[in-house]
Amino acid sequence: MASPPLKDQLDIVIPTIRNLDFLEMWRPFFEPYHLIIVQDGDPSKTIKVPAGFDYELYNRNDINKLLGPRASCISFKDSACRCFGYMVSKKKYIFTIDDDCFVANDPSGAKINALEQHIKNLLCPSTPLFFNTLYDPFREGADFVRGYPFSLREGVPTAISHGLWLNIPDYDAPTQLVKPLERNTRYVDTVLTIPKGTLFPMCGMNLAFDRDLIGPAMYFGLMGDGQPIGRYDDMWAGWCCKVICDHLGLGIKTGLPYIYHSKASNPFVNLRKEYKGIFWQEDIIPFFQSLVLPKECTTVQKCYIEMSKQVKEKLGKIDPYFEKLADAMVTWIEAWDELNPTKAS
Amino acid sequence: MASPPLKDQLDIVIPTIRNLDFLEMWRPFFEPYHLIIVQDGDPSKTIKVPAGFDYELYNRNDINKLLGPRASCISFKDSACRCFGYMVSKKKYIFTIDDDCFVANDPSGAKINALEQHIKNLLCPSTPLFFNTLYDPFREGADFVRGYPFSLREGVPTAISHGLWLNIPDYDAPTQLVKPLERNTRYVDTVLTIPKGTLFPMCGMNLAFDRDLIGPAMYFGLMGDGQPIGRYDDMWAGWCCKVICDHLGLGIKTGLPYIYHSKASNPFVNLRKEYKGIFWQEDIIPFFQSLVLPKECTTVQKCYIEMSKQVKEKLGKIDPYFEKLADAMVTWIEAWDELNPTKAS
Repeated sequence: MASPPLKDQLDIVIPTIRNLDFLEMWRPFFEPYHLIIVQDGDPSKTIKVPAGFDYELYNRNDINKLLGPRASCISFKDSACRCFGYMVSKKKYIFTIDDDCFVANDPSGAKINALEQHIKNLLCPSTPLFFNTLYDPFREGADFVRGYPFSLREGVPTAISHGLWLNIPDYDAPTQLVKPLERNTRYVDTVLTIPKGTLFPMCGMNLAFDRDLIGPAMYFGLMGDGQPIGRYDDMWAGWCCKVICDHLGLGIKTGLPYIYHSKASNPFVNLRKEYKGIFWQEDIIPFFQSLVLPKECTTVQKCYIEMSKQVKEKLGKIDPYFEKLADAMVTWIEAWDELNPTKAS
Repeated sequence: MASPPLKDQLDIVIPTIRNLDFLEMWRPFFEPYHLIIVQDGDPSKTIKVPAGFDYELYNRNDINKLLGPRASCISFKDSACRCFGYMVSKKKYIFTIDDDCFVANDPSGAKINALEQHIKNLLCPSTPLFFNTLYDPFREGADFVRGYPFSLREGVPTAISHGLWLNIPDYDAPTQLVKPLERNTRYVDTVLTIPKGTLFPMCGMNLAFDRDLIGPAMYFGLMGDGQPIGRYDDMWAGWCCKVICDHLGLGIKTGLPYIYHSKASNPFVNLRKEYKGIFWQEDIIPFFQSLVLPKECTTVQKCYIEMSKQVKEKLGKIDPYFEKLADAMVTWIEAWDELNPTKAS
């Protein structure tokens, strides 16, 4: 399948760039695109972007200026702030990546154009209603196998493409502590649709999505400064998005492309950020597994507002944090609709 | 993970051997095991098994003698008759393979020991309740990723291991006709659990299962001579097994190991066998997707008998064939329990 470069339809959102090697390494792939950099820490520090890149940069002062009191929904001193970039983009597609993710090689040694694979994933349908044992049936050299109902072969639009990581796997702090030397060296040459009704852990390191289809649900929550929890920003977005995609008949793909995740974050720091989440997720997962959205929720925004109500009512019992989060979900939608008026709910 | 050879716990069931190269090619892998060959056609023809193999062979006369009037539930002149072998085995594990499936090579050129990989798959747990983005978390070099609930990390027992095919893909007749030259050359180095609530097309070409956990549901239906349909034997078993596994908390894995599928069956013959199934599966799939088994169904046999009632009631409306099939499902369970008295329901 030919993959159009989609230059005018895709923005690359990066939470902060601490490492200029990162941009140099991606230069041949990223230079044709527009970058949105959302600085997560001290606004007085300046990020130097090398010449040749087309970019806009937002720090905390910019976020406060643009959103006013609604800026409270955007995390501070945490890479979760990247979702502000999703909101200010005017493009149909977003690719977001962390600054410790480098270009990976495929088994032949060729550099992997992650962006190109994400675009392929987003441009061809997903098949969440029935599992295809040869994986993505739309990929070259593959198809639907015997026994796959013909009425389901059109598939559904793909809203999210979740890419993976070679080298440092995306483990939680306890697993990092137990397996400090584990590296992911297995290149699994596949893309597949996560079936309807199944939740998955969505990682924000190497992720692309269709803003028009799912953007308003791609909120990375309240993490970092002043919050009791970290490292659940992408997970939260993933669980919300999966339930909404299932409800609206949209698909999520996972697998290719790989990036090379260069360094493990500190497991002790991670444990401090995660430990409440490790307890809470035992209630959050059953909550999302049993969450039902009413038929009247026909847009992402309506789904998300309804979801925020259920978060407040059901997860608020676990900790007051979830009441605050539920309010922030509403604020996020208000801010989204203000900045994206033609697509407002 | 070390994989015990399980010599005394596994039988290999083969529907018919038309090609003696098949056994010679598999000799180093199959010779330690006991083979059960179920001849699908004319009982007066003799299958010559080369020296060195430990085997028992059943033809139609043997099936009639052993099962009496209940032999009606075993298909004639169709490889679906292989399920008779599952019933007469006294072992815990079954591996079944078609005689046009040869030993495949992995990307390094090494011969793949399919049996060893199936045993690995069956001996380690499945994770049907939540998707792990690094695939089978129990495989060497992999684990559960960040955001995977800790309470679900024990997994559930694996009942079925579904292996794949290089070279000739398992396509239906229409796809064969449209893509006569398509070959599967992509070696996808993964094993994954089919999530709970998701159906899949189970192919009987390269399949292993735990008889104790799921055996009585591994019925390949009524196909071939005197039946209006063919090539849905494994599909039918797969849909029944998946619903029962989901109900009983068992897992099904798909992916590795690959075998080399040497020759495409005739698409015109296949179209004749399949065409009613192509219509019917449009009703069969929603039937299985919405099928609910009551809590009282605590054994595979009870689940299967309950399922047969629902097949008769709901699919019987499509065609009288399903009433006959529902009766055969009951007969199958009676025959199974007669031959496996200690594990009777």
